[in-house]
Amino acid sequence: MNLKGRVTIPTDMDIIEDTIRLSEQWGADAVRDCDGTDFPEELKDVGLKVYSTYYTTRKDNAWANANPDEIQQMYLMTPIYTAAADSLRIPLMKGLYKDMLTPNTRDDITRWWEVIDRSTGDVVPTADWHYDEAAGEVVLNTVPFHDYTVSFLAYIMWDPVHMYNAVVNDWKDVEHQITFDVRQPKTHAFTMERLRRFIQEHPYVNVLRFTTFFHQFTLVFDELAREKYVDWYGYSASVSPYILEQFEREMGYPFRPEYIIDQGYYNNQYRIPSREFQDFQAFQRREVAKIVKEMTDITHECGKEAMMFLGDHWIGTEPFMEEFRNVGLDAVVGSVGNGSTLRLISDIEGVSYTEARLLPYFFPDTFHEGGDPVKEAKVNWVTARRAILRKPVDRIGYGGYLKLTLDFPEFVDYVESVCNEFRELYDNVKGCVPYCVKRVAVLNCWGKMRAWGCHMVHHAIYFKQNYSYAGVIEALSGAPFDVRFISFADIKENPDILKDIDVLINVGDADTAHTGGEWWCDPQVSSAVKQFVYEGGGIIGIGEPSAHQANGHFFQLANVFGVEEERGFTLGYDKYNWDSHSHFITEDASGEIDFGEGKKNIYALEGTEVLVEREKEVQLAVHSFGNGRAVYISGLPYSFENSRLLYRAILWSTGDEQNLHRWFSTNYNVEVHAYIENRKYCVVNNTYEPQSTTVYLGDGTSFDLDLEANQIVWYTL
Amino acid sequence: MNLKGRVTIPTDMDIIEDTIRLSEQWGADAVRDCDGTDFPEELKDVGLKVYSTYYTTRKDNAWANANPDEIQQMYLMTPIYTAAADSLRIPLMKGLYKDMLTPNTRDDITRWWEVIDRSTGDVVPTADWHYDEAAGEVVLNTVPFHDYTVSFLAYIMWDPVHMYNAVVNDWKDVEHQITFDVRQPKTHAFTMERLRRFIQEHPYVNVLRFTTFFHQFTLVFDELAREKYVDWYGYSASVSPYILEQFEREMGYPFRPEYIIDQGYYNNQYRIPSREFQDFQAFQRREVAKIVKEMTDITHECGKEAMMFLGDHWIGTEPFMEEFRNVGLDAVVGSVGNGSTLRLISDIEGVSYTEARLLPYFFPDTFHEGGDPVKEAKVNWVTARRAILRKPVDRIGYGGYLKLTLDFPEFVDYVESVCNEFRELYDNVKGCVPYCVKRVAVLNCWGKMRAWGCHMVHHAIYFKQNYSYAGVIEALSGAPFDVRFISFADIKENPDILKDIDVLINVGDADTAHTGGEWWCDPQVSSAVKQFVYEGGGIIGIGEPSAHQANGHFFQLANVFGVEEERGFTLGYDKYNWDSHSHFITEDASGEIDFGEGKKNIYALEGTEVLVEREKEVQLAVHSFGNGRAVYISGLPYSFENSRLLYRAILWSTGDEQNLHRWFSTNYNVEVHAYIENRKYCVVNNTYEPQSTTVYLGDGTSFDLDLEANQIVWYTL
Ligand SMILES: [Mg+2]
Ligand SMILES: [Mg+2]
Ligand SMILES: [Mg+2]
Repeated sequence: MNLKGRVTIPTDMDIIEDTIRLSEQWGADAVRDCDGTDFPEELKDVGLKVYSTYYTTRKDNAWANANPDEIQQMYLMTPIYTAAADSLRIPLMKGLYKDMLTPNTRDDITRWWEVIDRSTGDVVPTADWHYDEAAGEVVLNTVPFHDYTVSFLAYIMWDPVHMYNAVVNDWKDVEHQITFDVRQPKTHAFTMERLRRFIQEHPYVNVLRFTTFFHQFTLVFDELAREKYVDWYGYSASVSPYILEQFEREMGYPFRPEYIIDQGYYNNQYRIPSREFQDFQAFQRREVAKIVKEMTDITHECGKEAMMFLGDHWIGTEPFMEEFRNVGLDAVVGSVGNGSTLRLISDIEGVSYTEARLLPYFFPDTFHEGGDPVKEAKVNWVTARRAILRKPVDRIGYGGYLKLTLDFPEFVDYVESVCNEFRELYDNVKGCVPYCVKRVAVLNCWGKMRAWGCHMVHHAIYFKQNYSYAGVIEALSGAPFDVRFISFADIKENPDILKDIDVLINVGDADTAHTGGEWWCDPQVSSAVKQFVYEGGGIIGIGEPSAHQANGHFFQLANVFGVEEERGFTLGYDKYNWDSHSHFITEDASGEIDFGEGKKNIYALEGTEVLVEREKEVQLAVHSFGNGRAVYISGLPYSFENSRLLYRAILWSTGDEQNLHRWFSTNYNVEVHAYIENRKYCVVNNTYEPQSTTVYLGDGTSFDLDLEANQIVWYTL
Repeated sequence: MNLKGRVTIPTDMDIIEDTIRLSEQWGADAVRDCDGTDFPEELKDVGLKVYSTYYTTRKDNAWANANPDEIQQMYLMTPIYTAAADSLRIPLMKGLYKDMLTPNTRDDITRWWEVIDRSTGDVVPTADWHYDEAAGEVVLNTVPFHDYTVSFLAYIMWDPVHMYNAVVNDWKDVEHQITFDVRQPKTHAFTMERLRRFIQEHPYVNVLRFTTFFHQFTLVFDELAREKYVDWYGYSASVSPYILEQFEREMGYPFRPEYIIDQGYYNNQYRIPSREFQDFQAFQRREVAKIVKEMTDITHECGKEAMMFLGDHWIGTEPFMEEFRNVGLDAVVGSVGNGSTLRLISDIEGVSYTEARLLPYFFPDTFHEGGDPVKEAKVNWVTARRAILRKPVDRIGYGGYLKLTLDFPEFVDYVESVCNEFRELYDNVKGCVPYCVKRVAVLNCWGKMRAWGCHMVHHAIYFKQNYSYAGVIEALSGAPFDVRFISFADIKENPDILKDIDVLINVGDADTAHTGGEWWCDPQVSSAVKQFVYEGGGIIGIGEPSAHQANGHFFQLANVFGVEEERGFTLGYDKYNWDSHSHFITEDASGEIDFGEGKKNIYALEGTEVLVEREKEVQLAVHSFGNGRAVYISGLPYSFENSRLLYRAILWSTGDEQNLHRWFSTNYNVEVHAYIENRKYCVVNNTYEPQSTTVYLGDGTSFDLDLEANQIVWYTL
């Protein structure tokens, strides 16, 4: 076993000796600084690779203040106000943290702001409104009792992540770091100089860890400095007249604030993306890539590696999109909360290595008297490990204040075991595509751009409205399938992409980007999917798959799934198909299946086999369509049991039940992964208790096995 | 007390003496025959008024068979079939009861049938399909994997209600009664003759009880003779080329089968009605009214009264619409299952009297050994009585086999008490508008045409999808309010109708006719409602009021109600308003309020006062808007407790909390109704147990009162 390498640890001025000791115990080969820590020069020659965080867009207020026109900007929409008379005053900053944002009146507000009548959707002519700067209010002529909003540009006078850290950590008297815009000409030139200077001044640094590049994900605070709006995928803060004029020139059509504002929904990932927003994202990817390339070139020229932190100012980099392959990065690092967020890192192509920052961070919220960092670490590692076994990151690491771990010797020992287990795993898995039982494609409006992150709002954070769907993605992140993410546009462009797929999954609520909404009214798309199933493909719908009210259906694939949703319109139809049947898919389900939030009012059509029904609402049903098979599930939060149910559903939908017992564990708490090329396989206990199981190999032979809690056992073929 | 009159009882050949005896005990002044009973001539001169059922459209197969072109027809749509290749055969009668329907190939099928591509919504050109009559299949050229339907006309070869009775009662070897179409010329002439003949042949009959006029509500059976589709409000069976050509001529635009078919939803009351369907309904009302008038004229000419049974072939009569006032009817009778169905009868204007057929019917399903007809009668009477106290019918009655009651002397006695209580009530209430605390308008797409019946699918039948909404209508049916039903079109036509209203109610699911859907995107409508509230009106929304996704809102009145529904699009917004508050509206609510099905994912905006929240989902909230007030409720099934909650919500929404203690019972199981003009008031116990309460009079004075189970106590002012 390789006892050294593939591990990064944090350090600080006050923990030099212990850094060396722990790096040896854990086999770490790299150290890093963090926001709020400093790198001790004493460690520069101890044989550890040195990472340094580098902030492209902040930590230089002198520059920002000298170039206020190149401070970053964001689009914001006021709340929707109802006019009670023929005029209305709309305060721009109500509900916003005053010190963070300043409306941009430097540029022509009649061009860059937009007042909209939200009762009609019409733009209010600029002649009908003006900005009372003293009052901070837009004054407009109105039609009584129509609704109005103002979309406006504001300068970001306090970097949102810096503000977040300051507020959360209660930093006093901290100077607000202003965010400057590297895309604009003066700052662009300055930034390249600044980067060279930084490298010169930090010769001992080996890896520049960019945090990140140019545009912060959307993050806004309210008057009380509470988080008001956040979208880790949000592009609202990647705008400026400079950028937008360039966009206009390239696209050949005029820009409208509404392309970013999107009725106040800011094109979040639940929204079916508009053509214009997709144009804008593509434009941003191209432009961001160019400047990232400039910076990585400088980094390389100076003999350093360039690493990107997938967070903070990552907007426009979109690591799963074509442009990313040529930005010249050596590495990507990201924080990992579960299997999906692990794959968000490990599936990135075009870099030399990827690194997962594991939890917990060494912060006082966990490392305090009575805290249980070992438990957090176990949950994090076992959850991430499922996904690592499918697609490994190349390195792992930790962040925070290393000193805090010293009081937790049990934790120090557990991290040692994780590091060793990771290295063994990596050696066994390395360079090998693990055995995939099926090729599964998740179909939504975003496709590969939102691979693994679809349904996420923040990283791995629970939301009542999405855990029943995100659970499917989490299950897939560690399952033995070749998983890809495709969009409706992909199918429309080339229906043949379906030829390469065994099972399609459509998961989410009606009329969201996740299920597709009106896309299902494009007969090229719907026919391609129906043909795919008819000719033998499998399809699994979770929630309200293909749902959009039109043409006599809510589920546009009702004929395929064999289920529909009662929305009142079919109450007059008698429904007789309610009997539940036992089935291959539910054979491992003991007791009540957890459908999470589930869906109300689903009923089965004639010829559909209901597997689970509760209070005259179908939760799980199967249906044949031509030579293909469809599975409907009302919701599927992540659990080992549900992961097994999905596994069986995938097998059944492809008519492959007879091959269940291949690289398979009868106990669903245990999984088997095979690495044929490397002549290895492993059996892994995903739980915190011992487990017993029967393990089936690829040839159908089997043996019984008892595993310790969390244990992973490696075998050579 | 008046011990005689206002009561109708059934009779039959085998119960002549007992009919006389029971009519005396119950104070009945009229007797009737039923479907399946005969009237004994011995009873024609015993001082009882005699009703005779009269079937306008059936019970003459000789005529029907001799005039097959004038047999009634209905529009039907096949299920939606997916083409797997470039042609498809669609069987017309799959899923339909063969003996009931015969496709109409007599008329030009290329004109009256329609094949539709349900993937695009386009009509398939008639050149691309033909009907293979031998196979009973439409053969069509298709685009592979598009969906298709055939809309076709079929003759009704077995009257649906006759079939229903035959199937339910297991009648053997019964000749199928064919439904003929009184609207068509030969049958029209024949029908007038037939009516005169019937009257001549039944000189002892005083009242012709028409069952009903010309068009059966939609009722279809499947291959197994099970009910397949039913819509008591359905117009699908009121069509024929003869009628439709007349419609075309009058409207000046071509008819399309799709106007009736409506994607297979058949314009049921959950559907937002199309302009064309509303044109068709209006046309039918006019035409039906003309022929009804001919028949009532003949009836009167022959010295008889004309009574309409509000059921069976009632389509086109629409008793709340203008045309009905001039059809010349003397009376309407209808079956009463609860307060809403009572008001469906008693609110009808333009007739001399209304009559409620109470439950239970004297049928063996209730009147058998071990049956408890008294219990059913009590529930029915106490439920109906709430509504009768607001707007009395003029008569009550029973149906079925009178003989069956003889074994249930307790039932016979209970009916006597009901009849006496009704007569006393009627004497006290008669001719007087009861005291109304507020003027309340239910706003939906149907307005007065679906007064009291909105949310009903069948009469007073429970549906999971509507009981939480129908409960509001039921509560209103017996509450001291002036209740009206208005439509969005009413507001658009004349916003001033809102001046006459204290509280608006919008209740139902999103994008249904009940809440309005895209109507809320008509700024004339939405502004009028906002203005109404802003200027001091009250508004109560239940379920998904004003919901339609557009312009940055799902609830188009989000600014008024102060709540929104999370559909994924606003997950990025932090929500801080979750604390529940005690409030005037919930003061009588003990324990958990029953919101029925409720609604998921409702959250409160800033400034809204949450009254009940469960698992971060708002169930009940209030919000001020200008001078007005809004109440949001997630659902409100009918109960005395919820009825009280609605009462308080109405008072609060009008800012009239201080007048709660006017004609009021502190115990919500007891209600107080005042009849100022008649100088009467009553206190009524709606439960089956004794109750104690404090009664407040109109001047705020009060007294304590104990009531027996079900008791009603009358007082003179
Ligand atoms: Mg972070
Ligand atoms: Mg009936
Ligand atoms: Mg009857």
